[in-house]
Amino acid sequence: MIILVLNAGSSSLKYQIYNMSDESVLAQGRVERIGMEDSILTHEPSGKTEVRQVSEILDHNTAVKKLTDLLIDREHGVILSMKDINAVGHRVVHGGESFKHSVIVTSEVKQEIRKLIDLAPLHNPAAMMGIMAVEANLPDVSQVVVFDTAFHQSMPQETFLYPIPMVLYRRHKIRRYGFHGTSHDYVSRQAAMKLNKPLESLKMVTCHIGNGASCAAILDGKSFDTSMGLTPLEGLMMGTRSGDLDPAIVPFTMDKEELTLNEVNSMLNKHSGLQAISGFSSDMREITDAMKDGDKQAKLAFDMYTYRLRKYIGAYAAGMNGIDVLVFTAGVGENSVMVRQAVCENLSFMGIELDNERNEIRSKEVRLISTDKSRVSVLVVPTNEELIIARDTYQLVRESL
Amino acid sequence: MIILVLNAGSSSLKYQIYNMSDESVLAQGRVERIGMEDSILTHEPSGKTEVRQVSEILDHNTAVKKLTDLLIDREHGVILSMKDINAVGHRVVHGGESFKHSVIVTSEVKQEIRKLIDLAPLHNPAAMMGIMAVEANLPDVSQVVVFDTAFHQSMPQETFLYPIPMVLYRRHKIRRYGFHGTSHDYVSRQAAMKLNKPLESLKMVTCHIGNGASCAAILDGKSFDTSMGLTPLEGLMMGTRSGDLDPAIVPFTMDKEELTLNEVNSMLNKHSGLQAISGFSSDMREITDAMKDGDKQAKLAFDMYTYRLRKYIGAYAAGMNGIDVLVFTAGVGENSVMVRQAVCENLSFMGIELDNERNEIRSKEVRLISTDKSRVSVLVVPTNEELIIARDTYQLVRESL
Repeated sequence: MIILVLNAGSSSLKYQIYNMSDESVLAQGRVERIGMEDSILTHEPSGKTEVRQVSEILDHNTAVKKLTDLLIDREHGVILSMKDINAVGHRVVHGGESFKHSVIVTSEVKQEIRKLIDLAPLHNPAAMMGIMAVEANLPDVSQVVVFDTAFHQSMPQETFLYPIPMVLYRRHKIRRYGFHGTSHDYVSRQAAMKLNKPLESLKMVTCHIGNGASCAAILDGKSFDTSMGLTPLEGLMMGTRSGDLDPAIVPFTMDKEELTLNEVNSMLNKHSGLQAISGFSSDMREITDAMKDGDKQAKLAFDMYTYRLRKYIGAYAAGMNGIDVLVFTAGVGENSVMVRQAVCENLSFMGIELDNERNEIRSKEVRLISTDKSRVSVLVVPTNEELIIARDTYQLVRESL
Repeated sequence: MIILVLNAGSSSLKYQIYNMSDESVLAQGRVERIGMEDSILTHEPSGKTEVRQVSEILDHNTAVKKLTDLLIDREHGVILSMKDINAVGHRVVHGGESFKHSVIVTSEVKQEIRKLIDLAPLHNPAAMMGIMAVEANLPDVSQVVVFDTAFHQSMPQETFLYPIPMVLYRRHKIRRYGFHGTSHDYVSRQAAMKLNKPLESLKMVTCHIGNGASCAAILDGKSFDTSMGLTPLEGLMMGTRSGDLDPAIVPFTMDKEELTLNEVNSMLNKHSGLQAISGFSSDMREITDAMKDGDKQAKLAFDMYTYRLRKYIGAYAAGMNGIDVLVFTAGVGENSVMVRQAVCENLSFMGIELDNERNEIRSKEVRLISTDKSRVSVLVVPTNEELIIARDTYQLVRESL
């Protein structure tokens, strides 16, 4: 079965095409600057030469047309005909309380995703555009939606509700949803497999730290708590997002700086985090490089970032009475030796003992980086959100046949 | 030395008068509804009958006049003449970065407190009114100001800064200050004394949980981190305050409910917390009573409250690589057997083992409530913010003589 995975943003569309017989990636690519005169399509077919086209791509419909044309292109293509695509899987950011797992797209599903636009005004409309574009270009193909929030729907009320008037939950569904669910789900399963233990027997904290970052407390194989909330702003300090703040800072800053709602949202989502403290970068590699050169603001950004992550690990350990497994994943989690070391440094009280040599090994494999006598197993698990979307799509489409 | 302690709110004034030779309280009382026609003055002289007067008290000046009249009243008084009052100590909520400890009031100090009104628009003006009222009524007496924030001025940058544009710190002094400092300071000292160990050798978490609530991480006898932030809104779930939230909830709610900055502040400070979730009370006694009667919302409020506190204890343990001492204080902390038990239940992984019998003992004394083999000593320490203000005042005035 051939599956196309789409991740649509408001002005971008990333894709990956899988042959599910061996889960190999036939091609991957992205369309950027959709809606502009100089849109860029980058197509990377496996074993063939990369293509980069600059042209006017005014909407997602045209983007899907262009990329599927390339998929069957004689020179750069990876399949013979559009009919070879058996199904399309979409990443959808917000599934609200309606979606507790991935589903096949129906008219009811589309209606429900539209209803959730209120909760994800930037992301869900883009996903809908992706779905509609596939309907227009590949009318007979089955589509599946995979939600960032679904894995966290297992959270109990005491962790997903906020201590604010209940009417806000009833009227506007204001609650903790959590994101990066496909990643937390995947890496927790991979970790249990690596340790050769049943997932349900392990208390875990999974740290998905990339440009966006969240951690999750996993109990009985299910999400028990997670650091992102109603939106992906809450929780850890990120590349350009603040994470946790005194909520009173929002009205205080709006008042002092005369900011609108959009401006304060933009400040906290796009101009905060590592970027704001370092003053020069949202990228942890650049932060740690500058630290080595003695940059004090970079050091401060690094210290705040690792301190805040360490506090979450302790908090979730307190939520579950200790943990058995700590997992690092995503860009920073998979690659930053220094972040992992700094985070684990103060955690021996809860049974974490990092093996510094193992921590320094760079690899694409799932690997243990704690010592053999560490009570808690610390693992690096490369995440692969596209593969999970492809797998969910494959499974649902097969079941429906 | 006789010392009068004042705690001025915008429409209230609480007082206590101490004989510092034995730290005995000669009288205490409060003026409520200042600015109204039916202001209420309640005066409780030690060993004499209580007085309750209803009259028009339009300002703090008149309030101080009335209460000092009662202090020297033939029937209800506790001192012979106004000259017997040697000094007055004031509680001031916000000392910003200017005050790292208590100081004698000078014209520079008054000017600095006025400058900080921006950071505590409700509290600091009231404190200034108290200071001015004493100047008018007791012109020759020394005055001392004791700040809620001062103890936390030892926090390092990585814990006091927020991951938002640095210009907000430089321009508006937006940072974590923390509150309840006199209480965290006092109970940490009392705990070390009870354990007969040097304060500096103990890693502690102190939980001041009353109607307002905060916890502090204490390292080397100094505040290393604390849960309240720029304002007393951040951190733990409280009687009517939300504590931590996704910061994006603020603009989201303002938009959906068409709230002004004042309205959203009021919602989060006065209509959230236990009150919002239980739907009927901000008082933990009423919450736990209702729980026993099977009230589900009360149980949910209790679970959220204790879960969020437990997470902070774990977070601070991760910040300091474990703790030696956990202290409960203030209304809920000193009196709620159920809260202490629920909070400690899941913390055996960090060496906390509560002794349920000891936990049930009700007393006004400092007491150990963990088992003898618990690695962490858990203590209940009654707080006494007025006494600390009296002591600071006494010491500063004596030094200045």
